[in-house]
Amino acid sequence: MSKPRPISGFPEWLPPQRMIEQRFLDKIKSVFELYGYSPLETRAVEPLDQLLRKGETSKEVYVLRRLQEEAGSSEDSLGLHFDLTVPFARYVLENSGKLQFPFRRYQIQKVWRGERPQEGRYREFVQCDIDVVDRDTLPAHYEAEMPLVIGDALGALPIPKVTIQVNNRKVCEGYYRGLGIGDPEAALRAVDKLDKIGPARVGELLAETAGATPAQAKAVLALAEISAPDASFADSVRALGVSDPLLDEGLAELVAVVETAQAYAPGLCVADLKIARGLDYYTGTVYETQLAGFERFGSICSGGRYDNLASAGNDRFPGVGISIGLTRLLGLLFGAGKLGISREVPTCVLVALADEEHRRAADDIAAALRRRGIPVEVSPTAAKYGKQIRHAERRGIPFVWFPGAPDSVKDIRSGDQVDADAATWTPPESDLHPVVTQL
Amino acid sequence: MSKPRPISGFPEWLPPQRMIEQRFLDKIKSVFELYGYSPLETRAVEPLDQLLRKGETSKEVYVLRRLQEEAGSSEDSLGLHFDLTVPFARYVLENSGKLQFPFRRYQIQKVWRGERPQEGRYREFVQCDIDVVDRDTLPAHYEAEMPLVIGDALGALPIPKVTIQVNNRKVCEGYYRGLGIGDPEAALRAVDKLDKIGPARVGELLAETAGATPAQAKAVLALAEISAPDASFADSVRALGVSDPLLDEGLAELVAVVETAQAYAPGLCVADLKIARGLDYYTGTVYETQLAGFERFGSICSGGRYDNLASAGNDRFPGVGISIGLTRLLGLLFGAGKLGISREVPTCVLVALADEEHRRAADDIAAALRRRGIPVEVSPTAAKYGKQIRHAERRGIPFVWFPGAPDSVKDIRSGDQVDADAATWTPPESDLHPVVTQL
Repeated sequence: MSKPRPISGFPEWLPPQRMIEQRFLDKIKSVFELYGYSPLETRAVEPLDQLLRKGETSKEVYVLRRLQEEAGSSEDSLGLHFDLTVPFARYVLENSGKLQFPFRRYQIQKVWRGERPQEGRYREFVQCDIDVVDRDTLPAHYEAEMPLVIGDALGALPIPKVTIQVNNRKVCEGYYRGLGIGDPEAALRAVDKLDKIGPARVGELLAETAGATPAQAKAVLALAEISAPDASFADSVRALGVSDPLLDEGLAELVAVVETAQAYAPGLCVADLKIARGLDYYTGTVYETQLAGFERFGSICSGGRYDNLASAGNDRFPGVGISIGLTRLLGLLFGAGKLGISREVPTCVLVALADEEHRRAADDIAAALRRRGIPVEVSPTAAKYGKQIRHAERRGIPFVWFPGAPDSVKDIRSGDQVDADAATWTPPESDLHPVVTQL
Repeated sequence: MSKPRPISGFPEWLPPQRMIEQRFLDKIKSVFELYGYSPLETRAVEPLDQLLRKGETSKEVYVLRRLQEEAGSSEDSLGLHFDLTVPFARYVLENSGKLQFPFRRYQIQKVWRGERPQEGRYREFVQCDIDVVDRDTLPAHYEAEMPLVIGDALGALPIPKVTIQVNNRKVCEGYYRGLGIGDPEAALRAVDKLDKIGPARVGELLAETAGATPAQAKAVLALAEISAPDASFADSVRALGVSDPLLDEGLAELVAVVETAQAYAPGLCVADLKIARGLDYYTGTVYETQLAGFERFGSICSGGRYDNLASAGNDRFPGVGISIGLTRLLGLLFGAGKLGISREVPTCVLVALADEEHRRAADDIAAALRRRGIPVEVSPTAAKYGKQIRHAERRGIPFVWFPGAPDSVKDIRSGDQVDADAATWTPPESDLHPVVTQL
C-alpha cells in the first residue's frame, strides 16, 4: 500500500484537534439536554426524491449505489442527507403516531454535500441541531428560545464572541407585498445575495427576477439596511411607511425574540433585516450567526421557523430549529490557530513500570484509580524511567505514578513528587480531563 | 408529501430507544477514556480501491456519485467505509509522522454494508472500536487488555452476561502447518463456517479447498472442539500431538490473554479454538463475544490482532483492536423487549405556567435550575394544570414545578408536593438523568 493522501472536502482532525471537537460536542450536548431536548438520530440516507424536493440543492446530493447492484435493479435510489432538518421532518411524519408533541429533539450527525470545497466549506461535516415541532400549531415563544439555547451552548465554549442575527420572513414578505412587489420569494432570494454581490447588483436582480421598479428596489434595500440590538428596529421599519398585516405580525414576533434575548443574554442577538436564508422552507423567524473576527466566512449557526416542511395530507407539524455548523466553526478556528488543549489523550496518570514482571502490580494500581474515575494507562514497556516520563510528556499526561513501598506520584510539569495511595489519591479537578483554551 | 416509510436495513430508533442508545454510548465512551483511549473519527468515505483490497467484502460496499457529476469525470471513486479498522489503518499510515506511538484510540461511528438485511444484520449501523497500534512491534500485553476494557464497558451496561471467546491465529496456522496442510488460510476459512454448516460439511470443505486428507480434517476438527475458561486448553491442544514453533508461540500468547482475564474479570473470557474470524487481516489473538440468550445471532463484539494492515514501504504499524456492534446489540435487546428507560426525555423538571404573562418568571426559574445542572423545560402553554401534569407524565418527567409564593415542586409519581427554592432545590441523584434498566 502506498502512503494515502487526504481527500479534498473530507476533513479529518489530528488527535489534539479531535480531542477539542469531542470536548465541544460534550458541552453542546449537555446544554441541549439541560433544555430538555432529547437525543435523536436519523439514518444517513433518504430516498432521492425526498432530497430533491427542494430544487436548488439537487447539485449537492451524493447518490448511493451498491457495488454489486444489478443494472436496472428495482431498489429505490438513495442519497446521503445534506442537512438534518429535512430528515427530521420526514422522521416526524413517519413516526407522528408514536411521538409526544411538542417534540423537542437534538441531533448531532454528519451531513454530506457534493459542493466544490473551499475554506470553511466541506463535503462532509458535523451539524448540531435543535428543533421543536408541534402538531397543527407551534407557539411563537419557541422562536425566542432557540437563540438562548445556542447562546448558552456556544457561550460555554472557549471561542470568540458570537452574534446571532435575527429576522422574520413575514416582515420581508409582508413588506414586499405592501410595496406591491409581485414575486416576494424572488425578492427574498435576491436580498439573500446582498453580502456576496452588493446592493447595486441586488437592485438589478430585484428588477430582473422579482419585477421590481427602481423605487421598489430602493425600498427593499432600505429595509435590508436596518439593524439594531433592540426593539428599536421596529420603529425604523415603520418609518419606511409600508403597511401590511403580515408585516405587523412579523414585527411583533421579531420584537418578542429580540426582547427575550435582551433579557436573558444581553448582546447575543441583533435584529438584522437583511438576513433571508436561501432555503425556501422558512416561514417565520430566521437566524444566522457571526463569529467575531470570522464574519467574512459567513454564518456558523443558522436556522428558522418552518410551517410546512413536515406535512402530509391533513397532518401538519410546524417547527423551528437552529443548527451549529461544528466542523465549519472548528475549521476556521483551527486554521487561525485559535484553540489549544492541555493534552491530546484522556489519560491523567501514566503508571510507570520497573520491569515486565511487575506489570500485574501496575495494572492493579491502574484499576484502583479507574474505579474512582481517573483515566489511567500503564506504561507500554519497562523502558528506563526517563523514557517513560517522556512518553507522558509528549502526550501532555500530567502525572506519572511510581509503584513502590510506598507508591509515589510525580507531577511532571512541576517536578513535585509525593507519596500516594491508589485507593485515595485524587488529582486536582482541573487536571482530571483535558481542558480546551482559546489562544 | 405522502407518509414516508422505513428503508429496510437502515434502522431508526424511537425516542425512548434512542435515549437508551445515548446512555449506552456515554457509558462506553467513558470507559474507553478511563483506559486512556483518545477519541478519533475518520471521514465516512474511502477511495474505492482501498475498500476493495480485501476481495471478499467487495459485495458489501456502497459507492458514491455526485448527482451532478459529469460522466467520465476524473474524480476518484469513493465508497462508504464498511468497518472502522480499515479506515483507521489508513489514517495511521497517512498521519504517522504526527502521531505518538503506541497510539491508543477509540472510534464510534456508523458504517455501511450493502448486505441483504436480516434480523440482527443492518446496512447502516454503529460500531464502537478501540485499537492500539505501535511502530514496528506491538507488545503482546495489549492483546490481553482488549477483553478487560470491553468487559468493563459492557459490564457497566444493563444487558445479559457477555462471554468473550478468544483464540489465536498462530495456534491454528501453526497446528495446520504441523499437520502438513498445504493451505492453512483455506483451512481457517472452512473452520470459520463451523457454526453455520456443521462439522461434517466443514470436513468436506477442508478436503475441497485446503487439500486436507480425512485424517488431517479430523485433526483440524478436534482442535476446533477445544474450549476452556482457563489455561487448561493448552494441555488439551498439546494432547493432540501436533508440534510446531508457531503453535507454541500462539499457545503462550493465548494463555497470557486467558490468565490476565481470569485475574481481572473471572468468567469473562473463554479460550475457544474454533474462533477464526473471516477477515483475513488477523495475525494473532482473535475475539468474538456471545450475549447470553442471543448466542444464535452471532458475535456482538469482535476483533483481533493485525500485524500487516497498516504497512507502506518500510513503515509497519502492527495493531490490535476490538469492536462493539452497538446497533446489533440494541436491535437484539429491543426486539426481545429487554431494555427499559425511566423517561424518554432528559427533562427532570417541568415548570408549570399559570398564564402566558408569567412565562418570563417561569423562564427565570428554569434558568436558575439549569445553572445547577438540572435539565428543565417550561410548559409549552398555560393549559390547565392537570393537562400540564399529563404533559410531564406522558414523557416520564418526574417533577412539576409550580411558581408561587413560595414556589413548590411536586413528585408526580408519589404525589408529594413541597415548598422549594430554585436556587437550592436538588432532585435525588437517581432522578437527575434517565436510567436504563434490564427488563
